[in-house]
Amino acid sequence: MSVLSLADVYRARRRIAGRVCHTPLIESQSLSEKAGTAVFLKLETVQPTGSFKLRGATNALARLAEQGCRKVVTASTGNHGRAVAHAARALGIEATVCMSALVPANKVQAVRALGAQARIVGKSQDEAEHEALRLVPEEGFAYVPPFDDLHVIAGQATIGLEIVEALPDVANIVVPLSGGGLFAGIAFAAKSANRAIGLIGVTMARGAAMHASLAAGQPVLVEEFETLADSLGGGIGLENRYTYALTRDLIDDTVLLSEASIARGIAHAYRHERLVVEGAAAVGIAALLDGVLPAERIKRGPLVLVVTGANIDMDLHRQIVDTASPQADSHTIL
Amino acid sequence: MSVLSLADVYRARRRIAGRVCHTPLIESQSLSEKAGTAVFLKLETVQPTGSFKLRGATNALARLAEQGCRKVVTASTGNHGRAVAHAARALGIEATVCMSALVPANKVQAVRALGAQARIVGKSQDEAEHEALRLVPEEGFAYVPPFDDLHVIAGQATIGLEIVEALPDVANIVVPLSGGGLFAGIAFAAKSANRAIGLIGVTMARGAAMHASLAAGQPVLVEEFETLADSLGGGIGLENRYTYALTRDLIDDTVLLSEASIARGIAHAYRHERLVVEGAAAVGIAALLDGVLPAERIKRGPLVLVVTGANIDMDLHRQIVDTASPQADSHTIL
Repeated sequence: MSVLSLADVYRARRRIAGRVCHTPLIESQSLSEKAGTAVFLKLETVQPTGSFKLRGATNALARLAEQGCRKVVTASTGNHGRAVAHAARALGIEATVCMSALVPANKVQAVRALGAQARIVGKSQDEAEHEALRLVPEEGFAYVPPFDDLHVIAGQATIGLEIVEALPDVANIVVPLSGGGLFAGIAFAAKSANRAIGLIGVTMARGAAMHASLAAGQPVLVEEFETLADSLGGGIGLENRYTYALTRDLIDDTVLLSEASIARGIAHAYRHERLVVEGAAAVGIAALLDGVLPAERIKRGPLVLVVTGANIDMDLHRQIVDTASPQADSHTIL
Repeated sequence: MSVLSLADVYRARRRIAGRVCHTPLIESQSLSEKAGTAVFLKLETVQPTGSFKLRGATNALARLAEQGCRKVVTASTGNHGRAVAHAARALGIEATVCMSALVPANKVQAVRALGAQARIVGKSQDEAEHEALRLVPEEGFAYVPPFDDLHVIAGQATIGLEIVEALPDVANIVVPLSGGGLFAGIAFAAKSANRAIGLIGVTMARGAAMHASLAAGQPVLVEEFETLADSLGGGIGLENRYTYALTRDLIDDTVLLSEASIARGIAHAYRHERLVVEGAAAVGIAALLDGVLPAERIKRGPLVLVVTGANIDMDLHRQIVDTASPQADSHTIL
């Protein structure tokens, strides 16, 4: 773990202070009853861009700006692109965001509304990343990786600091698992405070690149599928530098969820927590409701679910809260 | 204004620190475009009890606990009662909450879930308050007024501090107007920082006791009606001690809203801000959307809307977001 130090995380926190929210950590009555232990929600939904991605993007761009950079490019499933666009505007930097055709329209629109250029390229996050990297030498951009970057990881790690500082007795933290930038950051900060804190990654059953890579013992490619947890889509890169090894070393358990389960998580968040959350942000709630979090681990004490973002298409949200079944279909995974 | 000092507000902030959220202040793109100036939302919806009331209640109860009090009673339209129940549990105090039959079931249930005793009495906030005051000598309770109390006002005033510290250039603050505890607190803190900051109260057209009292030049009784902004119902008390005079001296404008307008505010918050808000919390958004905020004042600069709470019945919420018209019916007030 020598690639990252706690001092890097403190530097990130200083750099992003005033630009990013110190988010609320709220106890959930309905989920605490369900879990039999105190359950807290870390609400990244209230970040100005509607997701935690603003932390890493702001840290990375503020560093680039310090070095005189005035033009950045990135690839994104939506939330990172929006965060880069927001941070770029705040710092007076020009931004281009490459996104695949799988990225929902509301997220593309949000990037454009912040004054960034949005390029729709191909049908996967990997293709979008390829296009972003092509622009770097051709047009003189600095590239801002969506997750596999130490400054991005250090930015996301500030969530972990906030959790352990507010709740030093936390026993487990449940984190949506995608490229691993969020997971690695939070896990690093939490385990720096107390190695015994359990770190559980939750993701969708189909197209989960980090899960497949951990199972294979090395980064592998996976096919992408449409999912309610669209922010968790995308590969981790065969040339992954940091997040694969950090996640492998820090993860205690991985849980996979069906689409129906993710929909139940979204509906529960609305009905019982009065929160609008996107699919990727609902996975911790969904896993808890479906009883698929590791029981031995969960009963050890206070549990934090990181609720990562609110950027769901609202027509889809209404459809889900009107139709999602409150019962778990534990026999159907896909 | 000698009844309250800024030092009282700083004392309140120290007393409630760690028990109450320092809430996010988020710029709204959709509302900024509508207003032609930067519009920020102060999100009290993320407080542990789902409303700002936790600030004043925690300050008042923490003081009573310091004095050895172990038993409190209050009257509430719901959110204050829930806040008192929450603060009482945290401080190891026994709490009884008197509520009228107009208080929505979800709010009564929330009070009971926190371990407080809920008494349903009569059909108005005044009747509930009468019952609460009856218990004071009879059963040895300390009474925690819902708004007309300097410690409650100082607690709510911490919202004003947070706003002016985060956004020193704020030109106007829009506050839901009810008994005046929130309004007086925020207005006092804001105008202590800059007398020129405009303070605008917004409330429902029917049954607005503070508005009627300001018009009459003294506290008056009003009939209560069912309203989507149920948290704004209730009288200010003919024997009002603090909030009437403070509000009278600090308010710059009052705006009244129809029920249809409040519904539109709730629907807009959901569709465009991804926020679940109760009727009372939607009045600032509704007033802005309907174009009824004073135009001369609004164009002066950054505007903050205080979004006070999320405690709406979720069946009602779904009904509103499924049916509320996005167009203002500016000719119909009731």
